[in-house]
Amino acid sequence: MNIILLQEQDFTGATQACIGGPRAQHVHTVLRAHVGDELKIGLLNQQLGSGVITTLTPNTVTMAITFTHDAPPPCPVRLILALPRPKMLKRIVRMVAELGVKEITLLNSYRVEKSYWQSPALQQEKIDAYLQLGLAQACDTIMPTVTVEKRFKPFVEDRLAALCIDRRPYVAHPGLVSTPAPKVQGNILLTIGPEGGFIPYEIEKLQASGLQLVSLGERILRVETAVPYALAALTHENK
Amino acid sequence: MNIILLQEQDFTGATQACIGGPRAQHVHTVLRAHVGDELKIGLLNQQLGSGVITTLTPNTVTMAITFTHDAPPPCPVRLILALPRPKMLKRIVRMVAELGVKEITLLNSYRVEKSYWQSPALQQEKIDAYLQLGLAQACDTIMPTVTVEKRFKPFVEDRLAALCIDRRPYVAHPGLVSTPAPKVQGNILLTIGPEGGFIPYEIEKLQASGLQLVSLGERILRVETAVPYALAALTHENK
Repeated sequence: MNIILLQEQDFTGATQACIGGPRAQHVHTVLRAHVGDELKIGLLNQQLGSGVITTLTPNTVTMAITFTHDAPPPCPVRLILALPRPKMLKRIVRMVAELGVKEITLLNSYRVEKSYWQSPALQQEKIDAYLQLGLAQACDTIMPTVTVEKRFKPFVEDRLAALCIDRRPYVAHPGLVSTPAPKVQGNILLTIGPEGGFIPYEIEKLQASGLQLVSLGERILRVETAVPYALAALTHENK
Repeated sequence: MNIILLQEQDFTGATQACIGGPRAQHVHTVLRAHVGDELKIGLLNQQLGSGVITTLTPNTVTMAITFTHDAPPPCPVRLILALPRPKMLKRIVRMVAELGVKEITLLNSYRVEKSYWQSPALQQEKIDAYLQLGLAQACDTIMPTVTVEKRFKPFVEDRLAALCIDRRPYVAHPGLVSTPAPKVQGNILLTIGPEGGFIPYEIEKLQASGLQLVSLGERILRVETAVPYALAALTHENK
């Protein structure tokens, strides 16, 4: 973690915060910090700044907090992901937060195994923990929202059009049939299918909702490779 | 795996191959294939094609092989990576093969823990297995070469210049001091530091060898996020 991510409840005074648990362990064992040291901090959904350590115990760290700057600009992509298998979900949710995506929809698809929807990895507190790992990595404080859509057809027919307003909507699809992902100014909606891809019926439904097929190249990428690759292809500010 | 990756020793005749182990298990349990089914195959460092199953036993799959097309074009990037921690090394080596990188150097750096160099994950047969997982994912057959450089200074002073010939050489460095990674035509040398980044001395040495600092944005990305992000930023063919 490149910042200590604080929450309102960590504050024990107007400018004093006290943390325990894994964050305190990180300060002790990774940063090996002492009283008087200054750590990079951020307050969830608020500004970033520094915390000067005033008291250390084996299990807690108390800091005097000063805020100095805003969180970095968000990634302008709203991401719709076919629900990955639980082991990958954790890594992908953390990665998506790290990349600055602020709106994520986890969608059902024909090739998503039904058992994935019963996974404990989908519990809100687990998802929040993965997102916070990504924020702490990227020195960001703004918590993404994760929406769960367990039925493909009602989502695509009833709710997808609203998400496309003021966004360029795409679905990344392997192969040479689709055009290479373009560099886009402004807001984007990007849809990425499951391992094995969307089935033709699903691609047709997404296209009927106005989504354009784009390719990330000839190679079939795993979802956790496709996500950062696609975000860079669509949004990286080349000079 | 999106192809069954064959090796010369799997061939039991001019056009007949027999596989066992994890690949045969994959055919049985994931593909649930039967005699007569046609599977996508590739021969290591050779062409791709199809294999029609002629015999199935619980532990082996025999196929009649036809070659039809060449491997996809390689990624035009030679990658120099500070050695990641062993758990990440496996994922990153597989991912780099998946993305089509064909030349990889694993480099020491001040922030690479010495113990990483003793990891069994660095054994050639382990590395080869991870690379083959990436190739099988991406429907590629051309095996990347992995070079290990356990000393930073001799590598940078004596061997780096030769790698820069006919390549645009970059080092990805977090922060706003460096310019955004540009979209580049032609061959590239890309260097990515360890978790925590190269130290200033190392950056100076790399710059003295002609490497240009480029930024992937304001966020500090983990190596496994930075690699696909940087490859797309530098090489993706936007239209």
